[in-house]
Amino acid sequence: MADFAERFIRLAQVRSSLCLGLDPSADLMKLWGLDDDAEGLKRFCGTVLDAADGTVSVVKPQAGFFERFGPQGMAELGKAVDQIRAQGALSLIDGKRGDVPGTMAGYAEAMIGAGKGFGADAMTVAPYLGFDALRPALDRAVANGSAVFVVVRSSNPDGRSLQDARHPDGRTVAEALADEISAFNAACGPHTGAVGAVIGATIDEAGAKILARLPQSLVLAPGVGAQGASVADVEATFGPSLLRTLPSVSRAILREGPTVDGLRAAIDRYRDQVWRACERAALSPPSTI
Amino acid sequence: MADFAERFIRLAQVRSSLCLGLDPSADLMKLWGLDDDAEGLKRFCGTVLDAADGTVSVVKPQAGFFERFGPQGMAELGKAVDQIRAQGALSLIDGKRGDVPGTMAGYAEAMIGAGKGFGADAMTVAPYLGFDALRPALDRAVANGSAVFVVVRSSNPDGRSLQDARHPDGRTVAEALADEISAFNAACGPHTGAVGAVIGATIDEAGAKILARLPQSLVLAPGVGAQGASVADVEATFGPSLLRTLPSVSRAILREGPTVDGLRAAIDRYRDQVWRACERAALSPPSTI
Repeated sequence: MADFAERFIRLAQVRSSLCLGLDPSADLMKLWGLDDDAEGLKRFCGTVLDAADGTVSVVKPQAGFFERFGPQGMAELGKAVDQIRAQGALSLIDGKRGDVPGTMAGYAEAMIGAGKGFGADAMTVAPYLGFDALRPALDRAVANGSAVFVVVRSSNPDGRSLQDARHPDGRTVAEALADEISAFNAACGPHTGAVGAVIGATIDEAGAKILARLPQSLVLAPGVGAQGASVADVEATFGPSLLRTLPSVSRAILREGPTVDGLRAAIDRYRDQVWRACERAALSPPSTI
Repeated sequence: MADFAERFIRLAQVRSSLCLGLDPSADLMKLWGLDDDAEGLKRFCGTVLDAADGTVSVVKPQAGFFERFGPQGMAELGKAVDQIRAQGALSLIDGKRGDVPGTMAGYAEAMIGAGKGFGADAMTVAPYLGFDALRPALDRAVANGSAVFVVVRSSNPDGRSLQDARHPDGRTVAEALADEISAFNAACGPHTGAVGAVIGATIDEAGAKILARLPQSLVLAPGVGAQGASVADVEATFGPSLLRTLPSVSRAILREGPTVDGLRAAIDRYRDQVWRACERAALSPPSTI
């Protein structure tokens, strides 16, 4: 089976590289007039996935908004992943899991690849316990053709000071992580690696430097739309890296519900913008894909 | 209702401050001769909680080992939390959740306090996206008498380089987090705060300095037993802070299963060690509790 990067690039050619965040937050459910319970959650997800069917390459359920409803919410997360697969899209569970290696193996088994867990195509992980602690998840992604996206530089300003703290060798925390991701991917071969980076779409100059240290990795770029970065901003800051980037939009599309038509129109607007930005990127300087 | 710290301190007086990790890892389930499925998970948890009944103050389910079994595993996590409550102990879900503030609010709703989520007494969170991003969880803990433990310095060596990276003012990432926790707790009043720190029991001199910056916080100290720190080590490094510490043992007790008697004997051994260490700490220099 083709690995995550190949499947993504193939899908992006026909559907665009847009990643749709599936964020059943309390405020969006309220805005849609849904009850804040498991039944409301089920209706929210059903509507979003109907709207995304056949047009979106990657759907990214935000685990925290499912876990809000306890075990019932997690059951809905499982159903959402199944439906995303049935619709021929890729599922990326955004749970930012991170722990010591033994526990990390549990999270990897939970989130990606065949087995007893959710069986998504990709997951996000957070590196506070160190890059090496993440290895069980990275190895599992390589072994079963899925992907792991490591949070390197987040879209929220609160994260900057920690992510920009410096190691004794002068590199920032985020830069060192980017280097570790690149070294891991390079050791696996010359193709796009199984380990991607999460770099907020709202990046500044420091963020652009981090991106340059990731020549071979997929990049998940959350924060497009409501968090303040436009597709044009992403195009300007990501440059040719845009061709291996998943620009991720959540609220700016989801607030156009609760009708499937409203959501589809919003998805189409963002898809067109992403298409055009990628076309321009493909015609500009050579990229690594 | 008394807040988490009060309930913990009261329970610790009669049961000891020992925190028992509920870690249904693949290798422990195999060691116990259980099938690696939701039924095996249920039997594992039932046995551990039978053994802990009436003797353990805090039970800490490791979320990753439940999530391994997808939605069914998370349903068992919910049942485990309910049983811990029914047994009069405190539940601390160790999930190390962490995200931007909006999503963090979802995780907080999921894990602690009454509502539609798991309803545990405490949760662990990871700060890679910044201390300020955690505030929705900290505020919820204050509002409903639960607790949040922020991972500051983990028990695994992989985490050291990131946690010891330095801010421009010279403080390490872990030191700055300890200061933010202390400032948050101090702003809430002179009593033990709702925000605790996770500091691995395997700490070195740098870890001891971090502990000194947390005069008013509960401390969760995982890594006692199988990860290399003995209760005597914790006593030596934590000093009087031991009286507001939850020394957490998982594997070193759990590997004594699958019989309830075997587990009880191991729990008793660790309880006695923790009791005696706390007695000595109470008789030595003044502590902050």
